[in-house]
Amino acid sequence: MFENLRLAGAMAIITLTSDFGLVDGYVGIMKGVILSIAPESRLIDLSHDLQPQAVRQAAFVLSRAVPFFPVGAVHLAVVDPGVGTSRRPLLVITPNAKFVGPDNGLFTFALDGPDAQAWLLNKPEYWLPQVSRSFHGRDIFAPVAAHLSAGVAPDRLASPLLDPVRLSHLAPVREANGDITGQVVYVDRFGNLLTNIPAGWLGGRRWECEIGGMRIAGPSDSYGAAPEDSLLLLISSSGTVEIAVRNGSAFKRLALGEGAEIHLLPI
Amino acid sequence: MFENLRLAGAMAIITLTSDFGLVDGYVGIMKGVILSIAPESRLIDLSHDLQPQAVRQAAFVLSRAVPFFPVGAVHLAVVDPGVGTSRRPLLVITPNAKFVGPDNGLFTFALDGPDAQAWLLNKPEYWLPQVSRSFHGRDIFAPVAAHLSAGVAPDRLASPLLDPVRLSHLAPVREANGDITGQVVYVDRFGNLLTNIPAGWLGGRRWECEIGGMRIAGPSDSYGAAPEDSLLLLISSSGTVEIAVRNGSAFKRLALGEGAEIHLLPI
Amino acid sequence: MFENLRLAGAMAIITLTSDFGLVDGYVGIMKGVILSIAPESRLIDLSHDLQPQAVRQAAFVLSRAVPFFPVGAVHLAVVDPGVGTSRRPLLVITPNAKFVGPDNGLFTFALDGPDAQAWLLNKPEYWLPQVSRSFHGRDIFAPVAAHLSAGVAPDRLASPLLDPVRLSHLAPVREANGDITGQVVYVDRFGNLLTNIPAGWLGGRRWECEIGGMRIAGPSDSYGAAPEDSLLLLISSSGTVEIAVRNGSAFKRLALGEGAEIHLLPI
Repeated sequence: MFENLRLAGAMAIITLTSDFGLVDGYVGIMKGVILSIAPESRLIDLSHDLQPQAVRQAAFVLSRAVPFFPVGAVHLAVVDPGVGTSRRPLLVITPNAKFVGPDNGLFTFALDGPDAQAWLLNKPEYWLPQVSRSFHGRDIFAPVAAHLSAGVAPDRLASPLLDPVRLSHLAPVREANGDITGQVVYVDRFGNLLTNIPAGWLGGRRWECEIGGMRIAGPSDSYGAAPEDSLLLLISSSGTVEIAVRNGSAFKRLALGEGAEIHLLPI
Repeated sequence: MFENLRLAGAMAIITLTSDFGLVDGYVGIMKGVILSIAPESRLIDLSHDLQPQAVRQAAFVLSRAVPFFPVGAVHLAVVDPGVGTSRRPLLVITPNAKFVGPDNGLFTFALDGPDAQAWLLNKPEYWLPQVSRSFHGRDIFAPVAAHLSAGVAPDRLASPLLDPVRLSHLAPVREANGDITGQVVYVDRFGNLLTNIPAGWLGGRRWECEIGGMRIAGPSDSYGAAPEDSLLLLISSSGTVEIAVRNGSAFKRLALGEGAEIHLLPI
Repeated sequence: MFENLRLAGAMAIITLTSDFGLVDGYVGIMKGVILSIAPESRLIDLSHDLQPQAVRQAAFVLSRAVPFFPVGAVHLAVVDPGVGTSRRPLLVITPNAKFVGPDNGLFTFALDGPDAQAWLLNKPEYWLPQVSRSFHGRDIFAPVAAHLSAGVAPDRLASPLLDPVRLSHLAPVREANGDITGQVVYVDRFGNLLTNIPAGWLGGRRWECEIGGMRIAGPSDSYGAAPEDSLLLLISSSGTVEIAVRNGSAFKRLALGEGAEIHLLPI
């Protein structure tokens, strides 16, 4: 009996991701809406200080966090430059998770996974009675996330959607001569440059990296493996190639950000 | 039986609003105090990065969020320039919510609603044993919010108060010739200027807005309805007139903030 | 029966402290890991915007918050300049709390208390299957905190450790002539300078304080006890001597930070 309660209550996790910031109370408002509908839900913030309207940045943060949440979690994300236009409201369901937010590519990584389903949210009876033009996070996405979390079936909330929006991929390339070319896909708080090159491509050998006119040999074992202030080629905690500065910022040192090219040559 | 548990547990929402910031741990300390007294309470942050001692700004954020929380929620708010002086500790009870914090006008909007009661918190046996001069959020307001949430009746915590402090209102005016004059009451993270003019006053017709020497026709349907970088007159998600810049900041463009005058003339 | 549930569920508090910031989603990832293992745990953030790798600052914030949490809470803290080096993973158990994080002095205050036990975390079967070199918060500390919270005994997670790292203390001194010398140990969001001089040492009499070439008489009763913009000598909410400016910042006024000396002379 308690086991059922535990499953019903504890499993109802809803994560929240947005560019709303934490000053104005918008995130709290979405939580109030959710708790009004699904009082047992567990609300976990991923990030709310994403750059305004930076869909690609938000997609990266979300995609990196989702694998660490229990199966069945609902992920509400609102970075939504098209709010109030004809941009569609989206639900994505995968075997492991549910995603609610704008149809602008934010959930590309989920749509690209196995057995993903896209749904168009088109049942206003599950939204707030009045839908504003500028705060669909409160009026559409929060109530839908809450109803999903409370067990409402997707086909009561939405209809299948065939053509959800996808972001173009920045994909790393293995060239014929063995070199690798990739891109910086995210700059974190520490100024570490995260790339899209999988660690597995390095094959356990040593490489020379060219980025921003600098050359770095690696990978190094850890941040502590280099002198203070020197550039490092590392394997990030997400299993991709990362450029860092020990006790410093590679972002400031190289003056490079998202989209910057990185080349790896075998030594 | 589970239904009772659900009501007792899940309904015990306490929101927290302050100017404490999230760096120093003060908010976490208040939560520790609350959970020590009311372990089942659900703690939801509204904002903690309000400008230090900006009571009017905090009151706006709180007043906008409260309607979206379940009936019976306790709202703890501490923006408290008068802490340690003779400023009184206040409890406000309305049919829908309870408010705990300093008696400095923070809860004016609640006091002005129907059937609001003001109470003076004067029962130190429900506070922490030692009350500091500078952190009543921890020593008085957090314990009182927790006891309220756990079901302690107001008259055990407080005595009726006849003269709670109210903020003066900046009220919009409809002039005899049909023009409307209002004020900017809040600047949000996106640089949108929120005014106190209700959308209903616009009556479905078009207006010309004068603000900061600029003229803007509207209301527009959405952020997307204008070219990049142009000023927009919109209806905000709170149902009031808002000045925005598509993918930009009206605050930066106009160099105007809270208190700035706005005039609307029918076109 | 409900009483048991309440104890098992509500008491499982885990606080989180880090220098990860709230932008990149790292804190949310740790929470996902915790909830996957201990779904009933209550997660409370203390601070995540501590200065990167500022162990002493983090130790101060944590030490000040811990006494306000229920007995048995688990405190997870990750400010970890040595991640990926031979720095050891640590568990500290005191009669009132459990601490999980790097062995770098972060928990000195707990180790120095009565009946504290240090343990070396050395049972990888309680960690994530893959341990990265740079995110032990996710891979080691979050899972261990979750298992502790769920009731796993310390000796299944760790072995006794005799020589945990301690931070050197900045201790205040009472000089032979009655003067007191101490240090600023923390600067808070308001620019208040918190010192390590216990209020009890002031003995209810008045003192003259020398700091940064300024002289301030006190202690004053409250922030409100002085004109705007004047320096104040106060008793902080933590029961230590504090230097403040009414409605201003002592940090900006004096251009002094952590480590600055303060002298008190009896008047």
